[in-house]
Amino acid sequence: MSGEQQFQNLSLDPAVQQMLAKAKEKNIPTVWDRYEQMQPQCGFGETGLCCRHCLQGPCRINPFEEGSQTGICGATADVMVARGLDRAIAAGTAAHSGHAKHLAHTLFKMTQGQAKDYKIKDPIKLKKVATRLNIAVDDRDDNDIARDVALAALADFHEKDTPVMWAAGVVTPGRVKVLSDLGIVPKGIDHEVAEIMHRTLYGVDADPVNLLLGGLRCSVADLAGCYMGTDLADILFGTPTPLVTSANLGTLKTQSVNIALHGHNPVLSEMIVKVAEEMKDEAIQAGADRINVVGICCTGNELMERHGIPSCTHSVSQEMALLTGAVDAMIVDYQCIMPSVANVAECMGTKVITTMDICKITGAEHIEVRDETASENARQAIRQAIAVFKTRKNKKTDIPNITNTVVAGFSTESIIAALSKLNADDPLAPLVDNIKSGNIKGVCLFAGCNNVKIPQDINYITMAAKLLKENVLVLATGCGAGSLMRHDFMDPAKTKELCGDGLYAVLNAIGEANGLGGPLPPVLHLGSCVDNSRAVEITVAIANYLGVDINQLPVVASAPEPTSEKAISIGTYAVAAGLPTHIGVVPPVTGSALVTTILTQTVKELTGGYFIVEPDPDKAADTLLAAINERRRGLGLD
Amino acid sequence: MSGEQQFQNLSLDPAVQQMLAKAKEKNIPTVWDRYEQMQPQCGFGETGLCCRHCLQGPCRINPFEEGSQTGICGATADVMVARGLDRAIAAGTAAHSGHAKHLAHTLFKMTQGQAKDYKIKDPIKLKKVATRLNIAVDDRDDNDIARDVALAALADFHEKDTPVMWAAGVVTPGRVKVLSDLGIVPKGIDHEVAEIMHRTLYGVDADPVNLLLGGLRCSVADLAGCYMGTDLADILFGTPTPLVTSANLGTLKTQSVNIALHGHNPVLSEMIVKVAEEMKDEAIQAGADRINVVGICCTGNELMERHGIPSCTHSVSQEMALLTGAVDAMIVDYQCIMPSVANVAECMGTKVITTMDICKITGAEHIEVRDETASENARQAIRQAIAVFKTRKNKKTDIPNITNTVVAGFSTESIIAALSKLNADDPLAPLVDNIKSGNIKGVCLFAGCNNVKIPQDINYITMAAKLLKENVLVLATGCGAGSLMRHDFMDPAKTKELCGDGLYAVLNAIGEANGLGGPLPPVLHLGSCVDNSRAVEITVAIANYLGVDINQLPVVASAPEPTSEKAISIGTYAVAAGLPTHIGVVPPVTGSALVTTILTQTVKELTGGYFIVEPDPDKAADTLLAAINERRRGLGLD
Repeated sequence: MSGEQQFQNLSLDPAVQQMLAKAKEKNIPTVWDRYEQMQPQCGFGETGLCCRHCLQGPCRINPFEEGSQTGICGATADVMVARGLDRAIAAGTAAHSGHAKHLAHTLFKMTQGQAKDYKIKDPIKLKKVATRLNIAVDDRDDNDIARDVALAALADFHEKDTPVMWAAGVVTPGRVKVLSDLGIVPKGIDHEVAEIMHRTLYGVDADPVNLLLGGLRCSVADLAGCYMGTDLADILFGTPTPLVTSANLGTLKTQSVNIALHGHNPVLSEMIVKVAEEMKDEAIQAGADRINVVGICCTGNELMERHGIPSCTHSVSQEMALLTGAVDAMIVDYQCIMPSVANVAECMGTKVITTMDICKITGAEHIEVRDETASENARQAIRQAIAVFKTRKNKKTDIPNITNTVVAGFSTESIIAALSKLNADDPLAPLVDNIKSGNIKGVCLFAGCNNVKIPQDINYITMAAKLLKENVLVLATGCGAGSLMRHDFMDPAKTKELCGDGLYAVLNAIGEANGLGGPLPPVLHLGSCVDNSRAVEITVAIANYLGVDINQLPVVASAPEPTSEKAISIGTYAVAAGLPTHIGVVPPVTGSALVTTILTQTVKELTGGYFIVEPDPDKAADTLLAAINERRRGLGLD
Repeated sequence: MSGEQQFQNLSLDPAVQQMLAKAKEKNIPTVWDRYEQMQPQCGFGETGLCCRHCLQGPCRINPFEEGSQTGICGATADVMVARGLDRAIAAGTAAHSGHAKHLAHTLFKMTQGQAKDYKIKDPIKLKKVATRLNIAVDDRDDNDIARDVALAALADFHEKDTPVMWAAGVVTPGRVKVLSDLGIVPKGIDHEVAEIMHRTLYGVDADPVNLLLGGLRCSVADLAGCYMGTDLADILFGTPTPLVTSANLGTLKTQSVNIALHGHNPVLSEMIVKVAEEMKDEAIQAGADRINVVGICCTGNELMERHGIPSCTHSVSQEMALLTGAVDAMIVDYQCIMPSVANVAECMGTKVITTMDICKITGAEHIEVRDETASENARQAIRQAIAVFKTRKNKKTDIPNITNTVVAGFSTESIIAALSKLNADDPLAPLVDNIKSGNIKGVCLFAGCNNVKIPQDINYITMAAKLLKENVLVLATGCGAGSLMRHDFMDPAKTKELCGDGLYAVLNAIGEANGLGGPLPPVLHLGSCVDNSRAVEITVAIANYLGVDINQLPVVASAPEPTSEKAISIGTYAVAAGLPTHIGVVPPVTGSALVTTILTQTVKELTGGYFIVEPDPDKAADTLLAAINERRRGLGLD
């Protein structure tokens, strides 16, 4: 094996392979090296059979030993596994909703004149969201409406007598009833997180079914956090509309001041994009041709969907961006930022800048960013990047000459707008009719991360390829979107090749009607992880249109390469919403046959959704297709 | 070794030893058996060097391996340990404050006429709390004041611009400044819990110092939850005043319907006590002499301090109550209830009844208790106990003939009232003067649990004995109080024997002045775990009286045998409050020299408090004495 080929078992992205070769040559350890060193991983942790929830432990249960073992307190394997899963759901929920809460504060401060760098970018979305929240919009100033929306958002974190509005208000009426009957409508987002932490304490909940119902309720709070995150970002920064851009490491430019924005929240990154434009001259004075802002992970998706900012790379390959030697500053907010970036950056001369109070990294520089001073903070950070560029400009870089064309920016609103070119009076009709006719067999949402345990992207592209050929409409978010975009699945030039005839016809008709002179891309980029809400919104719109509930639709979800606890909470709310939900990495639940059975079978009787745990992407695609077909039959479709 | 002596290495309580002999004879496994089976415990978990916060893991770091190891993401040992500690603090905070939130709802519903079984028992405390919260009290109806207090309590869970009132309003002004300067004044209790879950997610906070500051802030929210729990329980059920009662397994009675109330929250248990009185005749008709309600763990402490209900046993020996064969029903709310009680109960014919939505136990019966129907629910539960008694009444029981006399019920209010008999105009003067003179060298609060790793009670009694002899005033809460009461440390007959001359003189003077004809007990029982707030209140009162901050006082805290994550959060807020704080079980932090150093040394420069980790109780007592003496010198006292 020569060159980069030896890295094919690590990543399917040729750009990443090139950087892995460089890392090896330069002896810079990456996540794959650390993964190898960690082998064998602890079997107790892998199966969920260890517990550190009290100081009498740690406890673990040997699944291969005879007899009914328990932890020291008497917790069974079932309890241990369910408690662990619940805490993961709580963490995921806290993260998404922390991001949303941040946006709510920014929006509120804006309405108070305290965050002058921010404006209402999309007043139409503002009014749409306000109306859903029963906030008056007629004859009112946008600023006043925005204040009420922000306050409603902040109120959704509190426990109250009424349900979380961003949960109960965004699903079908039938789903509200299903969730209410199960007692899993959340009362307040932070309240649910805290309640999970309480019930998973030593000596509290010791009934695995009760624990799992608690986890389901918390996951519905996670849906609320995600949905709120999307709504508020759209209001502040604009609702995405389709645009053409590019992805992969080739989007870095040797002659430019390269700034990689990494993390999740658009609050700061939007400012950096804006200020970078204004600071162009400073960069030119420093010898650069311009400031080249690129994205990593979901901050990248947020900027891509709204501004066409290129996505440099995603998830497990984040260190690879640094290995090019071309990144002058990696500016991060929070979530999914490997602490190792500080070390790799040091080797490569990149400056890592942290910006949020709750996310500092040893070895990185910290700039205390505030909504009130956001553009000035952005300026500070960019100035640092320019300073690094000055010392870097005459040095060799190793930027893989690989970019992929991406059409991104599919919000619910932009999809409906595109469909309305086919039927202005009834825009959902063309979509629903094609589902009925079988041109579109069903819909699959790909979400989640890459995971070092899986050759990067292999599950995504294997599954998406198969589903597209079977005329399944594929949506993607987060690093799932990142994965597919780096393999041309968002390039309209590939639609014909990748899609089955029925699906192609639909995508082409929409594209032609919208004056694109060709089809939509094979996979629709819905945005970041919180933008899974867009998939929920579309699904709910279809369900309401048909007068059915979500669990009857031929819609499925998949996180083929999940890593973050956020993927667990998202997957769980997909199940609560009624979707067959695939995960391609076995989560730490296999230590409990009961929990595994509940999650993969029993829960179907409760919510209609269920987990499909299948590491083999071929089989996973087949199982999802079978689920789609089962749903089609249920609706009387072929 | 004959009889029970062979169990001395498991528990120092002779009643427990008798039951351990029975368990062995009957081959019923207990927590000590499960602990033995769990040996050796996982060294990674013990040192905090494992992480399951994402699906790329589990990761672990071998502390004995050369080189700088990290998790797969690059998290160092320092980060891993700090993240784990933070999540434990979040869990403890969620539990205490969940309990307080429950009480706030009950109080609010009462004011709305929806929880008719509840009344304002202590209007003086109500007004005291309201005044502290800046709620008007003059010329207002108690019900209206109570409504405002309940709403203020519920509001403290929300993130808001103002600090958590039950935190910032209950410490010294100097302490508020210290906490503010460190950025660790909590904004909302649930908010802080959620923020910890966010920042400990994969790829968020990777700076151990920042993580620990976050943990400290969350722990201050835990103080708020505890304090609120005490305040609201006092309002609803009365502020304790000293009373004489008894403890240990001998408080169970063969001829009575024995009901053991286990858990933490007085909301239901108060109703059971009340209704049990009314249902006496039903018990007599069933052949019993009466209904004998006893407590276990903090539910026991809550009932003991307010009603003199005997405490049956505590913490690690909870299964022993069942082994007597005399408990007809164990009715539990939440926290510290070993799931194993369901199994032991089944062997012994006891019915375990769970009552709270978030705490069910496989094998137990569940009664859905609501504030609105509390007395009816209590009746249901008691009826079950009577039914069990009918089948049990002619069977042999094995109740150890061991009871201990206990004087309990020392609230801040009752202590001040007692002191006012010495100086009506300036009640704190006698206490402070005796501290100044050295009659009282200092104050030590014992809190926390028993832990199966330590021969039950040995650390408590070794340390308390030593400190009392050195004229340290000893306060105790929770299962710490339980431990000391089962060894006669709350029996006034032992005051002379156990205390140094100076301390004895003070306790005797107070007792005599209050017409007791003798001294107060050697150790003052302040109540349950949440009632650590009472120790804070007393400490703050002394500090304010002297015009100094908490970190200058000769006051220390100790959790000699901690188990629950609540003990970790309590210990952490004691450190945040400025107290030298001993723990007798090594928490999972030793995998990080940095974290260990920060918690035991560096933090002293920030808050004045610090952790003392010392498993040897003799050495621990010496270290606390040294800390007390250091503080005395700082104040210019001998």
